[in-house]
Order: sequence, then structure tokens, then C-alpha cells
Amino acid sequence: MKPIDYQSFLLFGDELISQARELVLSLWEEDRIQADLKVDTTPVSEVDLRCEKFIRSRILERFPDHGVIGEEFGITNQDAEFVWTIDPIDGTQNLINRIPTFATILGLMHRQRPVLGWIDHPVLGESLKGGIGVGTFHNGKRVFLNDNLEGLTSTDIIGTNCPATFEQGDHLDVLWKILKFHPQVRMYYDAYAHSLAVSGSLAVMVEYNAKIWDVSATQALIEGAGGFYRELGRGLDTGSNTLFHVAFGKKTIVELMSKMILED
Amino acid sequence: MKPIDYQSFLLFGDELISQARELVLSLWEEDRIQADLKVDTTPVSEVDLRCEKFIRSRILERFPDHGVIGEEFGITNQDAEFVWTIDPIDGTQNLINRIPTFATILGLMHRQRPVLGWIDHPVLGESLKGGIGVGTFHNGKRVFLNDNLEGLTSTDIIGTNCPATFEQGDHLDVLWKILKFHPQVRMYYDAYAHSLAVSGSLAVMVEYNAKIWDVSATQALIEGAGGFYRELGRGLDTGSNTLFHVAFGKKTIVELMSKMILED
Repeated sequence: MKPIDYQSFLLFGDELISQARELVLSLWEEDRIQADLKVDTTPVSEVDLRCEKFIRSRILERFPDHGVIGEEFGITNQDAEFVWTIDPIDGTQNLINRIPTFATILGLMHRQRPVLGWIDHPVLGESLKGGIGVGTFHNGKRVFLNDNLEGLTSTDIIGTNCPATFEQGDHLDVLWKILKFHPQVRMYYDAYAHSLAVSGSLAVMVEYNAKIWDVSATQALIEGAGGFYRELGRGLDTGSNTLFHVAFGKKTIVELMSKMILED
Repeated sequence: MKPIDYQSFLLFGDELISQARELVLSLWEEDRIQADLKVDTTPVSEVDLRCEKFIRSRILERFPDHGVIGEEFGITNQDAEFVWTIDPIDGTQNLINRIPTFATILGLMHRQRPVLGWIDHPVLGESLKGGIGVGTFHNGKRVFLNDNLEGLTSTDIIGTNCPATFEQGDHLDVLWKILKFHPQVRMYYDAYAHSLAVSGSLAVMVEYNAKIWDVSATQALIEGAGGFYRELGRGLDTGSNTLFHVAFGKKTIVELMSKMILED
């Protein structure tokens, strides 16, 4: 079997992300970005729709036999050997309120295993990319998620979701466990939380109720940086509606948190 | 009585902030910033200490009859007509974990009333400055906190503290009220939350247990932008140890939140 050339996929993804960034920045400069509410009451803007449409069409033009799962336009060819995941704007609530932490997320899975990922914050000028076999890069600099061999220290930050997200999934007990476990638990949102974990600013991020387009890139990036990604459970169970409950970051800390959360 | 020349104080503060920014950025570039834990178990770094020392000495050199209240080096001449407040690094926990949302905060009070403020995020390159009589500026552009006459909308964000902060002050009931009031309640931290409220990204920010050096600049900035600052209560009561419970942002929304929080 011919080995997979991840490097060429990486270059293709870089090109997509860089073109998507230009598109998002040009719309950001406009004074007022309009948003509509989706069925699940989360907002979607013109930026989300145009960005995903662009990325989907470029992927399917270049790799007609690949699959695509996007937040806004659903699933194409889900059983393909290679499937791309797209969250065109992760953090639309931030985008429309001009908080610059939103991002474009792109992931590539091979036989359902995440292998490459991109998280790009156009306005912050922060970008993460990489994955299995190629390493992970933060603004072009290689990231190494060295283990916290001494365990959690008082200056480490545990990142997690806000109470509303845990409440929706009936997981408030998990949030309380985390809050009692460490004095520095902070809520970060969407892709920004993932970027902070991948670049090593958080010791661990614990996220409940994430979708496949939120986590596939992160898994590839964390593993590419030598960190650890662990699934703590799943909610729902119907294709792209599956909710992932995950912890990722520095290996020892992810294991410590997983054990604490999963034990009765 | 001669009118007070806030414009000249504003220029002096700009100069201080710009020199403090250079100092912070030069230390940020170093690989590892060491931190110690203070008596209250929050961290303090070399950056905090050097930055406050520099700002204090410049103020007292230029205005020997002014007062200064700083987070790290306490109170000088508290009863002066003009008193400066300094938080050299607000968000030290972020600084030492390389999360760029920390800021330097500088405020000027005249007869205990906040009149000017600066919130400067050196790494993000975001800065707010202004106050009474001079207007408020975000990255050099005038800010107008127009009122939300239609009240809270589904895309508005309410910002607040994280559960641990409310729990410390025995105010978890306030957090629950806020969480139940609106679906988009998000936790932002330290000066970054204040910057988001001053620049209009949050409809309102509700913060409990803040110190004078956290809020005096914000009050001046919010009022200078035409927004509303309201004290909801105080904890402790001994000079610079007073804890302020406050709401600030767009007028109608601040009033709406205050009424909801304060009613039984």
C-alpha cells in the first residue's frame, strides 16, 4: 500500500484556510454582520454560510471522492476513506458582537480517525495547524505539549465549558466536580479554548456536548503536538448529531481529570 | 476655580501606558516568566512588580501631591484631591500561561470620583482610554455606547464572573439569577471582560468582588462612552480592601440587570 502523503494534504488545507481568512476578514471589515437564528437557536451569519460554501466547493473540486461534513451544509459522502470536517465560523455569537476569538476550523479524517487539523483566528492572527506524522505548529512554530510530570500545579489552568452548556446536557455534576478539583478553572469558548489547549496555555480542556466539526481538528492537533485526547462519553447517536464529551491537553493532566470525572 | 485640564492628564497617562507596554512586551518575549503566590493565593510575577514600580515612581515624580493606590505596593496619600489607581498586570494567571488577554489598568480619580481610565492589552494590541469630558477611545477610535432601546436581544451577550468568584463571596444566588435570565451569558476574565463591555461587545458586564484598581478606570471609560456604571453593593469595608459589586455597559441593559439582581 502506498503511504499517505499528509504533507500534500497539509499544503492544500493551508491554501484553503488562507483563502477563507481573506474572505472572513473582508466581511469583518463591513460595519454590521447580520445573523439569523438556527433551529437550535444558535446564530448563523452570512460569513458562516459563504465561508463553508467556499471551502466545500474547493475540496470537492480537488478531491471528488472525498467526503465532507460541515456545520452549515451537512454531509456529503460520509463513508469515503477521507472525510473533511468544516466549522466555517466557530463562535458566531462572538463574530457578530465583534469579539475576535472566533475561528475557522478544518479537519481531515482518514477511515474516521482524525489525522490533520487547522484552527485559524483571522482577527487575532493566531493559527494552529498540523497533525499525525507532520507535527503541530502555532503561528509557524512547532508545538511540543510536554507532560506535566509534577501533576497539576497552582498556576495551571483547567479550561472548561460554561454552566449553560453543561446544564443543557444534564451534566452539571461534572462541572461541580471540576470546579471543586482545582482553584484555577476558567471558562473559555469555542475554538479559542481549543487553541489555548493545543498551544499549551491550558493544562487540560474538558468539553461536553461538542460536535464532530468542533473536535476532529483538535484531536489531530493535540496528538501531533505530543499531547493526549480522550473521549469521556457520547451523547445522542445519529451521525453528525453525535455529541462528544472530551478531555485533551497534557497527558498526565488529561488522565488525572478523566479518572476524577469518570469515577463514581 | 480653575477648570481641571483633563486633556493634559490624558496625555501624561498615554505616555505612562506606552512606556509600561514596552516594559511588559520586553519581559513577555523572555521564555519563562516566574510567579510567586501572594497571601491571597493569587500569583504575582516580576512583570507585575516592575511595571507598578515604574508607573508609581513616574506619577509621584511628576505630581508629588497626588495619591496612588496600586495592587502590589499599596497606598500613598489616599486623601489627596487626585488619586491614581494602578493594576500593573490584571490577569497574571493568564500572563504566566501565555494567554494574551491580560492588561495594564490605570485610573485617575478626582475627589474619589473616577474621571479617566486606561486599559491596555500589550500583546493583543488592544487599548482603551478616555473618560469624563474627553470621550472614550478604542484603538484611537471614539466609542459610543448607544443604548439598546429594544432591550436584550437573543444575540446580545451578558458577561459575568465565573462560579468560583461568586462562590468566594457567597453570591452564587446572583450567578444563578443571571444564568436563568438570558441564554447568552458568558464568563470573561479580568480586564478583558471590561474592555469588551467598554467597546460595546457585551451588552452588560456584571462583576462581583472587584477591587478599586479593577473598576475605577472602567467607570470613567464607560461613562466617557455614554454608557452606564452602577454599583450593586460592596463587600468588606476597609479602604483598598473594599470589594465592589458592579454592573456596567449599555444603559437600559444595566438597569434591567440591576433591577433583576437587586429584587428579592
